[in-house]
Amino acid sequence: MSVVTTKPDAVPAGEEPPDTGERHRLTSLTGLAALSLDAMASVAYGPEAIVLVLAAAAHGLGFTLPVTLAIAVLLAVLVASYRQVIAAFPDGGGSYAVAKAHLGPRTSLVAAASLVLDYVLNVAVAVTAGVAALTSAFPALYDDRLGLCLAVLVLITAVNLRGIVESARAFIVPTAVFVGSILALIVVGLFRSEPVSTATAAGHASALADDATTVGALLLLKAFASGCSALTGVEAIANAVPSFRVPRVKRAQRAEVALGAVLGVMLIGLSVLISRFHLQPVQGVTVLAQLADASLGHNWAFYVVQFATMILLALSANTSFGGLPVLLKLLARDNYLPHVFALKADRQVHRHGVLALYTVSCALLVFSGGDTNTLVPLFAIGVFVGFTIAQTGMVLHWRLQRGPGWRGKAALNGFGGLLTGVSAVVVTATKFEEGAWLIVITLPLLVVAFRTVHRAYARIGERLGLGRIPDVPHRDRSVVIVPVSSISRLTSEALTAATSLGDEVRAVTVSHSDPEDRAALYALELAWAEWDPGVPLVRLDCERRSLGRPIAAYVRAVGAAEPGARVTVLIPETEPERLWQRLLQNQRGAVVAHAVRRETDAVICRLRFRLP
Amino acid sequence: MSVVTTKPDAVPAGEEPPDTGERHRLTSLTGLAALSLDAMASVAYGPEAIVLVLAAAAHGLGFTLPVTLAIAVLLAVLVASYRQVIAAFPDGGGSYAVAKAHLGPRTSLVAAASLVLDYVLNVAVAVTAGVAALTSAFPALYDDRLGLCLAVLVLITAVNLRGIVESARAFIVPTAVFVGSILALIVVGLFRSEPVSTATAAGHASALADDATTVGALLLLKAFASGCSALTGVEAIANAVPSFRVPRVKRAQRAEVALGAVLGVMLIGLSVLISRFHLQPVQGVTVLAQLADASLGHNWAFYVVQFATMILLALSANTSFGGLPVLLKLLARDNYLPHVFALKADRQVHRHGVLALYTVSCALLVFSGGDTNTLVPLFAIGVFVGFTIAQTGMVLHWRLQRGPGWRGKAALNGFGGLLTGVSAVVVTATKFEEGAWLIVITLPLLVVAFRTVHRAYARIGERLGLGRIPDVPHRDRSVVIVPVSSISRLTSEALTAATSLGDEVRAVTVSHSDPEDRAALYALELAWAEWDPGVPLVRLDCERRSLGRPIAAYVRAVGAAEPGARVTVLIPETEPERLWQRLLQNQRGAVVAHAVRRETDAVICRLRFRLP
Repeated sequence: MSVVTTKPDAVPAGEEPPDTGERHRLTSLTGLAALSLDAMASVAYGPEAIVLVLAAAAHGLGFTLPVTLAIAVLLAVLVASYRQVIAAFPDGGGSYAVAKAHLGPRTSLVAAASLVLDYVLNVAVAVTAGVAALTSAFPALYDDRLGLCLAVLVLITAVNLRGIVESARAFIVPTAVFVGSILALIVVGLFRSEPVSTATAAGHASALADDATTVGALLLLKAFASGCSALTGVEAIANAVPSFRVPRVKRAQRAEVALGAVLGVMLIGLSVLISRFHLQPVQGVTVLAQLADASLGHNWAFYVVQFATMILLALSANTSFGGLPVLLKLLARDNYLPHVFALKADRQVHRHGVLALYTVSCALLVFSGGDTNTLVPLFAIGVFVGFTIAQTGMVLHWRLQRGPGWRGKAALNGFGGLLTGVSAVVVTATKFEEGAWLIVITLPLLVVAFRTVHRAYARIGERLGLGRIPDVPHRDRSVVIVPVSSISRLTSEALTAATSLGDEVRAVTVSHSDPEDRAALYALELAWAEWDPGVPLVRLDCERRSLGRPIAAYVRAVGAAEPGARVTVLIPETEPERLWQRLLQNQRGAVVAHAVRRETDAVICRLRFRLP
Repeated sequence: MSVVTTKPDAVPAGEEPPDTGERHRLTSLTGLAALSLDAMASVAYGPEAIVLVLAAAAHGLGFTLPVTLAIAVLLAVLVASYRQVIAAFPDGGGSYAVAKAHLGPRTSLVAAASLVLDYVLNVAVAVTAGVAALTSAFPALYDDRLGLCLAVLVLITAVNLRGIVESARAFIVPTAVFVGSILALIVVGLFRSEPVSTATAAGHASALADDATTVGALLLLKAFASGCSALTGVEAIANAVPSFRVPRVKRAQRAEVALGAVLGVMLIGLSVLISRFHLQPVQGVTVLAQLADASLGHNWAFYVVQFATMILLALSANTSFGGLPVLLKLLARDNYLPHVFALKADRQVHRHGVLALYTVSCALLVFSGGDTNTLVPLFAIGVFVGFTIAQTGMVLHWRLQRGPGWRGKAALNGFGGLLTGVSAVVVTATKFEEGAWLIVITLPLLVVAFRTVHRAYARIGERLGLGRIPDVPHRDRSVVIVPVSSISRLTSEALTAATSLGDEVRAVTVSHSDPEDRAALYALELAWAEWDPGVPLVRLDCERRSLGRPIAAYVRAVGAAEPGARVTVLIPETEPERLWQRLLQNQRGAVVAHAVRRETDAVICRLRFRLP
């Protein structure tokens, strides 16, 4: 996935900005290795999704290879059209950028919402698929798969909360190991006429075909649509053109084509093996694990495939944690999300994003019970929506440019858009009750949320007079009000601060009508007279046991009596030595600040007095 | 219970102070009705606790009456000694006051801690016993008893969060109905030679006696100790002397004696019936329900007894919610608890106390599984610790006074203290593994917490120079620093406020090194020059993506450069129209305030600009 990572070396907020030296940029080969992780990882669940649909019908599995070939054709169309996207948008940006340029802000928001959903679903799909690879190797863990999924999620979240320096380069080795082992599996398997081992699948119940179901167009379409989840991630290179070495477009295009070729070879190779070994989907063992068994035998090589798969899927989940905050930042800069997502201040904000992603992923894992195949269709919908929007945008792009051969290019993109659009509709319709309704509800809700936020910012900007030159500031008479309840060094410090800030300072104290309080007030007034700090002490009588309201009422009264004056409330508080001693603070300050803030327009100053 | 409610009409914080007119004060009779609720309610679980212990041994139940008589003797001793407490402490105050006067602060803290525990346990015991009364009447609800307990607790908590005006007078009717129905039960039962009905107990498994266990001194002591839970609440009148009409002491003493008499009659009467009807404890039906059945028949009268019991127990739980905040306030005034508990400001603080009591009670209910008999021993320990301390204090009181007949009075209190002290030890020892360890751990921890808080306040008071006349405030030069990131009406407003407050104003903006930021900074500097607000704009370059730290560092630098100046940071923020729009705030203000507060001593002003 990692659809909008405009810089592949993009780094969580709070880290150093990326090095922009040419030497560190990507060649075609390192670019392929660094940016294809998500696409390669989807090989772990794509073929399985096809097999699972086809197995429902008698003789359905015989159609695995044709369906895979159809997907390979779509892959070719997508790669060709992303080559064109690379040329047309050399600054990267993906479907959001294409839609923004050619389809208007509303469609770009649909693209953005689908990307947000994809990032979230990518985490859930990759984690469940990774755990499925693990439990295929160690069947005893199968019953704990949901717990394992949550544990992996916690681990990834913890790593991201620490703020790792996430470099695309770190992905080269695991990607290469995974691709190498899958290719080895395919090559070895092609030399075998029957499975060398069925150890993993042994003892597992295989999904029984419903003999009443025959292979029809709808079933094939469903298999096609599910299998297309293997295509997620092919857009990553198009989003990261600026990270390549000059000539960027050429190198990126070459990497894109190479990605398509490798992915196509893997998909077709695996489906040939599935047909050759007559694999049946069995519960608790992935198709990839069965293939590894059948081709390489139940030995160390099998475990290498499983571990490589698991690690690649964990890394794939991790890319969402790097990518989603970048997308949220872009949306926040365009006023579609709260500005806090674009705040350059600190890792705390990044932390909010990570924790939000963690929470939603958690919910999805629990919703699916840790099962990949429940999540894959939802994932596919979001991806296809993004593909369709990007392709449609490209058709308009070519029509606008009318360069040499634009009709052919536009036709190619149009064909791709049609294929992915139909697929999106098919998956949504066929999987509606099993979870697709979630996407159908969430996607429009996200778009509505983006638009609501955008409108609110526009109104706020209007009222703040952004873009216009405001009045020149002037100097008002300043009245500072200091709530006091006793005489101490804190009081002295507060009155000094108030005297320095204000033209006039008044201390106020709230007195209730019970005898104890009246005695305390009398003592305070006596001590005040003796101290004689040069500041009048105003007594606010109050029948009810209230503190904030009488002070807020007084502040309002002062403001009304002197319309030209600027009223400030200075609240003195002690800053305790140790953290637990915060519990000892009497919260008077907080109560007063809350009331004054709610009921008046006064500036609130809080003076924290560090105990010497 | 309600041990420290110095005013029976005490009202949750935030309400009007109680009416202090003599006309509204209590006579002996209304005082008895108003203040005996907790003592009367304990009749619902006290006899049951005895029966449950004795049933463990063969022929054990034959000792119900003797054990109850021993408890009645202790009751007489307690009532006699509380008559003396009333005379000696006419201002009320209970064991905390007695211990503070005669046993030193450390022992008074033990008394206070035991009171806190009692308030909490009273809630749990009363709720479970009330639900037991309900499920005895409607056995189908028995399996849901924990859920019912939690529901009742939620209800009581909700009522108290709303801040009811809780008047002791409201308790007169339910107390009278309960006492009347129990006395009727006893009188009718005395005219019967055998149970008129055993309908409720039918079909329930009765607890089988362990024939190997014989009735020994330890068993009797255990039964005695458990049964003493029926004595909780006898101290309530002694705590509320100021609420009686003149002559207060006489009237309160009369009410105390009447309370002892009624309670004694009820306890002895019930135990006579238990022996006469040869009752066995059965699971799911309270002893009181069996007695009602046996004496009044399984008809409307039975249901009246059950409902009266349930309502009285619910009200008894409710008194803790009124009483604990008062105790916490007393402790906070003596600097043993955070002052927030004594804050006269608002109901929010009261709310904290209610929610804390709710949480702990919830935990106790779940711990006990909704079973009264698990909780009663724990309750008894705390009550006995309080009794023992109060009696011991009274012994010292008489020795100090040496009035006429002081030796007799001291001997009476000493005997009472010995009895309750031994009971406390016995219950703790015999129930240690079943929950008494909880009290053994919590009680000292509470005392340690009180002392730690007290020491911390002493240190803080010392450093604040409380009680000494501090320096007279003076006027410093004032430098106001305003962080800005754009030019708008908010900026103008903030600079006006800053100019009014400061002798010198500086606007600061943080600039990071990425190109986008540099462009924004350039635009800001240009617009600033064009606007020319008369305030210099200081640029703080920062390599890292940080906002708060460079500003805090600048504030420190300004303070160091001008040691005599008082530095204030004025942070402008918009106050959104609607609550959800708070999400749109970019949190820059919060980030800056946090950093400045943590790293400097500057005064922080926050200006909230209401959008026009």
